[in-house]
Amino acid sequence: MRPCLKTIVRNVHVYQTKSLTGDAVKASSTHNLLQSLGYIKQTQSGLVHWLPLGLRTLNKITNIIKHRMETDGKAEEVSLSLLSPKSLWVHTNRWDNGELFKLKDSKGSDYCLAPTCEEEITSLIGSYVTSYKDLPMTVYQVGRKYRDEKRPRGGLLRGREFLMKDAYSFDASKEEAVRTFESMNHTYDLIFKDLGVPFVSAWADSGDIGGDMSKEYHYTHESGEDTVMACDSCGHISNVEKCSSFPVEDNQYSGDVSVRYALSEDRDTLVCLYYPQNRVLNWNLVKAALDGDVDSSLRDTSNEKVLELFRANKSEDEMMLASVLRVMDCRLNSRSNYPDFPLNQYLKSNFSQLSDASIVDAEAGELCGSCEEGHLSSKRSIEVGHTFFLGQKYSEPLNAKFSTRENTEEYCEMGCYGIGVSRLVGAIAHVTRDDAGLRWPRAVAPYEISICAAKQDELVAEVEGLLSSWGREVWVNRDEKAGLGRKIAASHSLGIPVCVIVGKKSWPCVEIEVRAPLVGERWRAELAQHGEAWGWTVQESAPVGGAAHHRVRKEHLKDVVGVILTDM
Amino acid sequence: MRPCLKTIVRNVHVYQTKSLTGDAVKASSTHNLLQSLGYIKQTQSGLVHWLPLGLRTLNKITNIIKHRMETDGKAEEVSLSLLSPKSLWVHTNRWDNGELFKLKDSKGSDYCLAPTCEEEITSLIGSYVTSYKDLPMTVYQVGRKYRDEKRPRGGLLRGREFLMKDAYSFDASKEEAVRTFESMNHTYDLIFKDLGVPFVSAWADSGDIGGDMSKEYHYTHESGEDTVMACDSCGHISNVEKCSSFPVEDNQYSGDVSVRYALSEDRDTLVCLYYPQNRVLNWNLVKAALDGDVDSSLRDTSNEKVLELFRANKSEDEMMLASVLRVMDCRLNSRSNYPDFPLNQYLKSNFSQLSDASIVDAEAGELCGSCEEGHLSSKRSIEVGHTFFLGQKYSEPLNAKFSTRENTEEYCEMGCYGIGVSRLVGAIAHVTRDDAGLRWPRAVAPYEISICAAKQDELVAEVEGLLSSWGREVWVNRDEKAGLGRKIAASHSLGIPVCVIVGKKSWPCVEIEVRAPLVGERWRAELAQHGEAWGWTVQESAPVGGAAHHRVRKEHLKDVVGVILTDM
Repeated sequence: MRPCLKTIVRNVHVYQTKSLTGDAVKASSTHNLLQSLGYIKQTQSGLVHWLPLGLRTLNKITNIIKHRMETDGKAEEVSLSLLSPKSLWVHTNRWDNGELFKLKDSKGSDYCLAPTCEEEITSLIGSYVTSYKDLPMTVYQVGRKYRDEKRPRGGLLRGREFLMKDAYSFDASKEEAVRTFESMNHTYDLIFKDLGVPFVSAWADSGDIGGDMSKEYHYTHESGEDTVMACDSCGHISNVEKCSSFPVEDNQYSGDVSVRYALSEDRDTLVCLYYPQNRVLNWNLVKAALDGDVDSSLRDTSNEKVLELFRANKSEDEMMLASVLRVMDCRLNSRSNYPDFPLNQYLKSNFSQLSDASIVDAEAGELCGSCEEGHLSSKRSIEVGHTFFLGQKYSEPLNAKFSTRENTEEYCEMGCYGIGVSRLVGAIAHVTRDDAGLRWPRAVAPYEISICAAKQDELVAEVEGLLSSWGREVWVNRDEKAGLGRKIAASHSLGIPVCVIVGKKSWPCVEIEVRAPLVGERWRAELAQHGEAWGWTVQESAPVGGAAHHRVRKEHLKDVVGVILTDM
Repeated sequence: MRPCLKTIVRNVHVYQTKSLTGDAVKASSTHNLLQSLGYIKQTQSGLVHWLPLGLRTLNKITNIIKHRMETDGKAEEVSLSLLSPKSLWVHTNRWDNGELFKLKDSKGSDYCLAPTCEEEITSLIGSYVTSYKDLPMTVYQVGRKYRDEKRPRGGLLRGREFLMKDAYSFDASKEEAVRTFESMNHTYDLIFKDLGVPFVSAWADSGDIGGDMSKEYHYTHESGEDTVMACDSCGHISNVEKCSSFPVEDNQYSGDVSVRYALSEDRDTLVCLYYPQNRVLNWNLVKAALDGDVDSSLRDTSNEKVLELFRANKSEDEMMLASVLRVMDCRLNSRSNYPDFPLNQYLKSNFSQLSDASIVDAEAGELCGSCEEGHLSSKRSIEVGHTFFLGQKYSEPLNAKFSTRENTEEYCEMGCYGIGVSRLVGAIAHVTRDDAGLRWPRAVAPYEISICAAKQDELVAEVEGLLSSWGREVWVNRDEKAGLGRKIAASHSLGIPVCVIVGKKSWPCVEIEVRAPLVGERWRAELAQHGEAWGWTVQESAPVGGAAHHRVRKEHLKDVVGVILTDM
């Protein structure tokens, strides 16, 4: 991994607009904290300027992602125009999207600011690929995307302008495309490991993007908008939208029952979905229970309207013979309190029933639908990445074809893979922060090390020279208005992983405060081995969160900082 | 300088849409060449997608610029939102600009896609800077900019979407700001040296951006839209717009004389500008000759209209007493053929005259206006960078103030500095190409080395391993449809600096064809010293442009390629 450029941002403190002390930091939302610390500046709802510190973190995340995409993901970088012509979006029926930023040029042609690039990329790659020999191909880009959210919120978590890594794969067969999908998920695992924040990958619903298989990458956090379910036995993890579960014992619910009406794909069968009133119907589980034979376009249509559609153009006799499928969630029993049946006259012989399906959102403590053995636990989470196996969903309408080995023509099998890069800055800041401020993992911190001293004297210069010549990213707090205590607090609230404190009192020893969470324990072994020789002592209860307060003779500062950084 | 990621673009040939042989390449415009070679794809007039090869070159140029901006330019990177609100542009009277791409969000607020960021950055930095202790500050960004050109042309040279490096400096006094301006020009010199293409820096007109001093960076080329003038004695170089000159002998022109009317700033004096009809009036020289006392807003106003404005609200008597200044270009003499004087009645005593000024565009062969000794030569050129000393032009209206050491309030003294990054790709391609295709300087080539062989065999694998493990950026042409000759031609037309040819016939020797222009001669000394020991022979007349065709034993391939690359 190549580090960022080593230049020191001289004016960090100029961008800091508010007091960085105690209560103000503790009470700030993460978005406000990022602003008052000088990482970003919000200019309008959902729009930000990136200041030098914030951009360093954004660039570090970008570089980690690019590196893995190129080496493990075997993807080639491209960069598409942001101005996407209307014709392409009309072609896939996505022009009438209220969240597109639209504009006209001076000749009156219509464009949108691209919110995603399935259309553009399929059309681009389709124009070049001619033969199976050209495949597989995976391309990616890191660039700004635009979505005119009605209610931008959560700062970087949901902006109207955001930095996105989007990748697209093209394969010659479904089997190869599935392998590419799996390999890209492996690449994602490596990327999220590199970022240094614990994550989960969960099977997910493909939503509007479409396709058969989809995975999401989440940071678990109580403030998250999503819910992921994990099995304690088989380890299966999925978004609750995609999680099947069973109650520990079937047929135990005897309270009120809710019903939701739906129609089969041909709209000839009325599907009645019964489930406990205290649970949430899960459309993905409904589709799975019915082997996909359900009209998904009616997902958000009211019961009355569905019945109306079902009755439309049917005579009374036909209604009498109407085909009805009753799906009973497996939690219900016969004593449950069912709503009235909506049809007045009908032949029971045309009724069929499914009663062992689970069609509601899973809850913690229930049995895992995958292994049927383990129990599920539930966590709130923030989504930060998403992968999709798309099949021919875009290649067919956009005519991305190639000639096979047998000289026939086939559509490419595609996948697409997104990571919200600017969203990651907000998400990582949010899940790692504490009451004292930010607490970046080493890999994404704007600087690895800060140097704080009461005065800029020759001791500081000596330590700075020592650490910089070693190739480390060092930031010296030169804020003339601040004393030592405030400088250390600033370093901690900014979330710099290692704070080196230089002063006449302890010289020739130097103090080190560790702010980032440690994931390794190598320092303990090194301390046992070298402690005495290096004059290295440790106080484990640090004044601010973090592992410890160290002190070491200056000749061994590099050694100790080196050990601590590898533990991060 | 950190190199790009080392991954090989596997599918280079997939993006190549046309035959890369002889006449087709020779006849292609540079823009079409970049497209058929798979560097870019134009999607709409003035808009392109960057393909993997083109993006590698774009990224290399970006990295060179960023590195110098941070180390030598002492600038900190920021990244501003692309969506700039109308209010800011109304404030500086730039909203009614036909070249702004404008759009509305779902709440009806107006934005433009930023074409430049003086407004945004002055407002941003102004909101943070409070004291002289916060200064100096220089920030820069590399990002997309937008300009709705009526006639986009020249491909990357004038697009509607382009990548731009823009930097802005803030100083506490004019002296410091001028030093920053000079230091940034020095940084620009280093950047353009790093890029590896000969350039000139020329004093220039500030145009609409404003300010007192301005320099442009140019590549000289006969197809350029600009003209730069250079003195063979003092070395002064300037854009013809800003170049003062004198004829070798004054008062030698006796042909027809043209006149252009103008008004003094208070519009009370009629200024009559006389100059030879075969020359072009130069407004900057006019302003200089009049010490700035001329109404520049009338620059493009017709003579009739100027006279009308002058006569407006003046009685006949007042016209009689009207003040008139006649400026005679120093090339004219009394026998020249002057046009009629436009006023019918006037008092000669109110006339004044200036007759030693030079007010027309310089021509090659004339005397330099700076040293008045050397002779000027003239070259067509392509502008690729521009620096401006702005003074308080933006800080005053946008209220970017700080408190001085004496506790008074002052506006910041600013400078701004642009480089057209995507324009550079087009300009470098254009000025370095030849009939065989592109010919990138080493520093910006998508790859430093290509490997070409008739077949992908173990010899290729050995050479590839050898060069890659050495950390070099190597591209292996794996186009299965092409024979050896076509692969070499492809490497040359793509402009890869060094082409290594591997084959059974010459093994264990390897051939090397050099495509990029060599600027050094170190290889000659090395050849003399090691030629025999390394089995290194050279044929200086290469089949395609470039310095030479080398042959060397494989154990010394790295040595020889290393020497050649340092000569580039």
